[in-house]
Amino acid sequence: MTTNETTDRRGLRIMSREECLRMLRSARLGRIGFVHDGDPEVLPVTFGMDGDAPVFRTTWGAKLDAAMRGHAVALEVDSVHSAVGRACSVVVKGSAVVEYDEAAIARYESLRVPAWADPGTDTFWVRVRPDSITGRQLNLG
Amino acid sequence: MTTNETTDRRGLRIMSREECLRMLRSARLGRIGFVHDGDPEVLPVTFGMDGDAPVFRTTWGAKLDAAMRGHAVALEVDSVHSAVGRACSVVVKGSAVVEYDEAAIARYESLRVPAWADPGTDTFWVRVRPDSITGRQLNLG
Repeated sequence: MTTNETTDRRGLRIMSREECLRMLRSARLGRIGFVHDGDPEVLPVTFGMDGDAPVFRTTWGAKLDAAMRGHAVALEVDSVHSAVGRACSVVVKGSAVVEYDEAAIARYESLRVPAWADPGTDTFWVRVRPDSITGRQLNLG
Repeated sequence: MTTNETTDRRGLRIMSREECLRMLRSARLGRIGFVHDGDPEVLPVTFGMDGDAPVFRTTWGAKLDAAMRGHAVALEVDSVHSAVGRACSVVVKGSAVVEYDEAAIARYESLRVPAWADPGTDTFWVRVRPDSITGRQLNLG
């Protein structure tokens, strides 16, 4: 008998790709991890989903720098539902690229992603080209 | 005239060290970023504060592996208070070390950090030796 319920070596249930995408589409706040001068960085981002690609606005700085070089990033979203004793976490891994295509930018703008940085600062849209989308769910004791 | 209100280049208010520590002490869920085979990883962790050092339990795996090698990590916590139009994010950077000292472990256990991984799996306590603790606060438009 086969089952869709699969767990990893830590006993966490592996979420299906569809579940992961659903969680990504309903989330607004994530954290983006990247490597800067050899060291790990984690910063919060508000993002939207363009198909299966997370997109977010950023100002110049370390985030944009990493993006412009096509560096690898990991975008994480999580949620804890204490009431139902459940927590889950989804991670998108891929490369970050600055978006210059006007039609794509218009699509991203229509997602109405809330600003994280102060409005008024110059911002660029960054697209994460997903190589993998994985999620784990835990039933809290 | 001097002021304690300092902003970074993106217009975000820089939080004081005390504010950052207060937020870390009231948080339970953070995300830990580290570099694994050259690529960024971000995973959720439930953690406690032992003085100004975040401590968390982990099972064997990538997180423990990074910790055992004394690798650099970045632990991020954030909160969005839509009602008051405010968001903030605190990042602790430092090196992760597995704790073997029994007195220290007893202190960590007393913090009653909720488990993220399934109970029953072998866990180790990891201490982040902080090199820097920084935070940014944004008044959402």
